[in-house]
Amino acid sequence: MTVTTTTPIRNRERRQSVQAADTVVAVLKGLSSLGGSASLTGLALHLDENPAKVHRYLVSLMDGGLVTQNANTQQYTLGLESMLIGLAAMRQADPVRIAEPALIHLREQLGITSFIAVMGNKGPTIVRMEEPSLPVTVNVRVGSVLSFLWSATGGVFLGLHDEPGVRAMARLEFDALDKTQNPPAAFDVLVTQLHDEIHQFQCVCVRDTNLKGISAVAAPVFNYAGQLAAVLTALGASGGFDTSLDGPIAIAVREQAQRISRQLGYSVP
Amino acid sequence: MTVTTTTPIRNRERRQSVQAADTVVAVLKGLSSLGGSASLTGLALHLDENPAKVHRYLVSLMDGGLVTQNANTQQYTLGLESMLIGLAAMRQADPVRIAEPALIHLREQLGITSFIAVMGNKGPTIVRMEEPSLPVTVNVRVGSVLSFLWSATGGVFLGLHDEPGVRAMARLEFDALDKTQNPPAAFDVLVTQLHDEIHQFQCVCVRDTNLKGISAVAAPVFNYAGQLAAVLTALGASGGFDTSLDGPIAIAVREQAQRISRQLGYSVP
Repeated sequence: MTVTTTTPIRNRERRQSVQAADTVVAVLKGLSSLGGSASLTGLALHLDENPAKVHRYLVSLMDGGLVTQNANTQQYTLGLESMLIGLAAMRQADPVRIAEPALIHLREQLGITSFIAVMGNKGPTIVRMEEPSLPVTVNVRVGSVLSFLWSATGGVFLGLHDEPGVRAMARLEFDALDKTQNPPAAFDVLVTQLHDEIHQFQCVCVRDTNLKGISAVAAPVFNYAGQLAAVLTALGASGGFDTSLDGPIAIAVREQAQRISRQLGYSVP
Repeated sequence: MTVTTTTPIRNRERRQSVQAADTVVAVLKGLSSLGGSASLTGLALHLDENPAKVHRYLVSLMDGGLVTQNANTQQYTLGLESMLIGLAAMRQADPVRIAEPALIHLREQLGITSFIAVMGNKGPTIVRMEEPSLPVTVNVRVGSVLSFLWSATGGVFLGLHDEPGVRAMARLEFDALDKTQNPPAAFDVLVTQLHDEIHQFQCVCVRDTNLKGISAVAAPVFNYAGQLAAVLTALGASGGFDTSLDGPIAIAVREQAQRISRQLGYSVP
């Protein structure tokens, strides 16, 4: 027997407050999807709601500073508190956590090893990795710092990360090169080549340059401000690993990187 | 006689839905002020509300995608829809509209002329201006494009705006200089000097360089992404216009520029 202490009236009140909460959420999302600003009529029409009802909820949102009304145009506009809520959401939007389904997707759909790397204080650093049950034995794991010059991951960071500190780290690696290693080009030429390559193909592919017998495809993950937030990389034994730009691996890595970027609030320019 | 068609029950329902709307707003703002993520207990404590009640509202926010719950930690976190609402608010955050009270403040408190300029396709362009009732006669108005090299406003744009197109416009102006005009330095040196000056003093001051007998103080306005969104400038006849860095005009212009920046979602690094 279920014992309930709530009366029908209390249940009704609860239902109403849930409906009211749902309507506030709908009003906020409606304003957002109308570009951040709308007239009362336009917003009510968009929500298929009574304008008087929508107005009541807008008053609560204005009291809270989430919405302002322009005195000249009478339009309702998302305000400073909405911006601050968005900024808090952006600070919480962790590319590593958000990338997890992408890594699992790459393992399950293509049976390949993939990882997400961020810029650490020693260089591009693997922070999350997924491997198939029979993994290719590679000498990288979570915590590994990768080469700017020889890895696909490092290439994306070098081509797109314009912080002076990051460039300086990459230049140190470049200057320390054993000249028999045959550096690919002058440092600035290399950076420009990588930058152009990523802008054209949205990824960097390498075969055997970083680890012998290993190929990799890496694609950039951007945040809401259009900054490079992380790099998504798939890798495998060069024998059976397709690094062509229109092959299934490159397509999947690019798609997943774009999906993560969208989840971080990035809108493709 | 007032005719009312609403019954006491309907009034009560309205009051409840307003209360519910206020609570949703409080839950969103609470999560935001706790950094974007909190436990149910922590959030209820912060709001001084019953956890069961807070949970009901969180469910509505989760249904709408504004909040997510981390399966491992049970924490509630502002989600993608909150980010999109914030981004829509940011796109609506118009520095020109938001700067209006600052321009009025400068006129009323210091009796000076001030304007807000944005980067137009021909250079730094005045888009909003406030003048005291007895204005200094100056040859600039809304729509005027200002010099990158000789105006305080242009100096802020030149020192902080790193878009290649903007640099190219400034360089064109530099290259076109009549050599008798005695250019201040080599172009790149000038840019570096301005950049360092703004980082140190948060403003650029000029006396008589752009318009004879006119002095000006200009300060940068930044947006949520830390990009230069606009420049706030005060100007006056050099005779009675204090351009010292710790004078009342420079202090007021810097303060107002920072206030506008905060309204645009900028958090001082």
